[in-house]
Amino acid sequence: MADKVTACILIIGNEVLSGRTQDANLNFLAGELNTLGIQVGEARVIPDVEQTIIETLNYARDTYDYVFTTGGIGPTHDDITSACVAKAMGYDFAHHPDAVKMLQSHYKPEDLNEARLRMAQTPVGASLIENPISKAPGYQIENVFVLAGVPRIARAMFDNLKSRLVGGAPVLSTTVSSDLGEGVIAQPLGDIQTLYPDIDIGSYPYFKDGQLGVSLVLRSTKPEQNEECAGAIKEMIESLDGNIIFSL
Amino acid sequence: MADKVTACILIIGNEVLSGRTQDANLNFLAGELNTLGIQVGEARVIPDVEQTIIETLNYARDTYDYVFTTGGIGPTHDDITSACVAKAMGYDFAHHPDAVKMLQSHYKPEDLNEARLRMAQTPVGASLIENPISKAPGYQIENVFVLAGVPRIARAMFDNLKSRLVGGAPVLSTTVSSDLGEGVIAQPLGDIQTLYPDIDIGSYPYFKDGQLGVSLVLRSTKPEQNEECAGAIKEMIESLDGNIIFSL
Repeated sequence: MADKVTACILIIGNEVLSGRTQDANLNFLAGELNTLGIQVGEARVIPDVEQTIIETLNYARDTYDYVFTTGGIGPTHDDITSACVAKAMGYDFAHHPDAVKMLQSHYKPEDLNEARLRMAQTPVGASLIENPISKAPGYQIENVFVLAGVPRIARAMFDNLKSRLVGGAPVLSTTVSSDLGEGVIAQPLGDIQTLYPDIDIGSYPYFKDGQLGVSLVLRSTKPEQNEECAGAIKEMIESLDGNIIFSL
Repeated sequence: MADKVTACILIIGNEVLSGRTQDANLNFLAGELNTLGIQVGEARVIPDVEQTIIETLNYARDTYDYVFTTGGIGPTHDDITSACVAKAMGYDFAHHPDAVKMLQSHYKPEDLNEARLRMAQTPVGASLIENPISKAPGYQIENVFVLAGVPRIARAMFDNLKSRLVGGAPVLSTTVSSDLGEGVIAQPLGDIQTLYPDIDIGSYPYFKDGQLGVSLVLRSTKPEQNEECAGAIKEMIESLDGNIIFSL
């Protein structure tokens, strides 16, 4: 098992950059990948521009173990992701016979027009990812997974591809939440971080029901170490006369 | 007025990449900037890693007219954005006298510890952005605006900085929504896009109340042209026996 397995997520679509659409795929994919022991190192939101997609994809697939794209695989003129993936990776771009069959099973012959058949085009050699909702599939080519932008479909596709992923050691997360202000715990928390360099300790202030507080999130691949570090954090909170709201 | 003014948004924080936190700042900032005539060309979500922040910031500020960062300006050890901004841009990094005063007005002297005073550190010469909620300010240095990650605070800071921004021609959006499937309109829509190359036409399928449909979003700086193009789209929908659900 690799020590660390990484991924990059590319959200492709003008609608996210214009503020029209709130992306929901990054959060979902990041959470799922994390559970599988795959750490998302970076995400980029880019427009439907050929050169940008090509350059970004080539950077991402060279830099990370896995790349996931969402968006731009529908039937309309602005759906250029698949053609860009083929061009970026040097593959021919053609109708995938199995994808054509999937569309044929879904549409009446008279409705399966040229535009809809575009959704069956993939880089030649791609391995399809089933879409139980609207049938037009996603696909995998090398370490790149091409998914729909519609969150419901992206999620269904992810469920259908995740058995193909090989993660590293899963990153386990322990959260200790306190009613102390972030500024009160900052100094001793920094000292604890220094003592546990293998744990990524994040400090996230919150404001809930009129009450300020802070959640301290410990992330590492070593559960015993998380537990030990969480113990040190709880002691620190109590020594500052704070309350532990929850710990899990 | 510049023809096109662009921005890049950098979401800085491990919590977004681990799936713990759903980012809400990109959508807000993109919408606001769009209204001001500033087009978001790209957004990146990056971890709290010094080298990554420095390289990404230097790319972004060289490439786009404006850069907005969110996250990493609190008092704890994982808040490294400001130090990285100073390092990336070659500025000294020191306590900003006015930021110190803001914190002094908010905290009792005995509570204003060294960690909290870190929130008053900026690249030397930065112009502060007021934070009406928790007082620790954001700031502008050259074309870079450094904002908090907490959405409520990021929004308040944006309100307090937007008078400093100079946009280009505002991009106007016209939406025509129909009950036709995306695949039905794809071919004639592509023809309309070819006739109106200055308009960015996006096609967004939706599924609402058991009904499939598609929203066609026209974006350009020319309202008359949007209107003409929307007219052509409505004619196209009617010629295909579709209904126009709404147009605005």
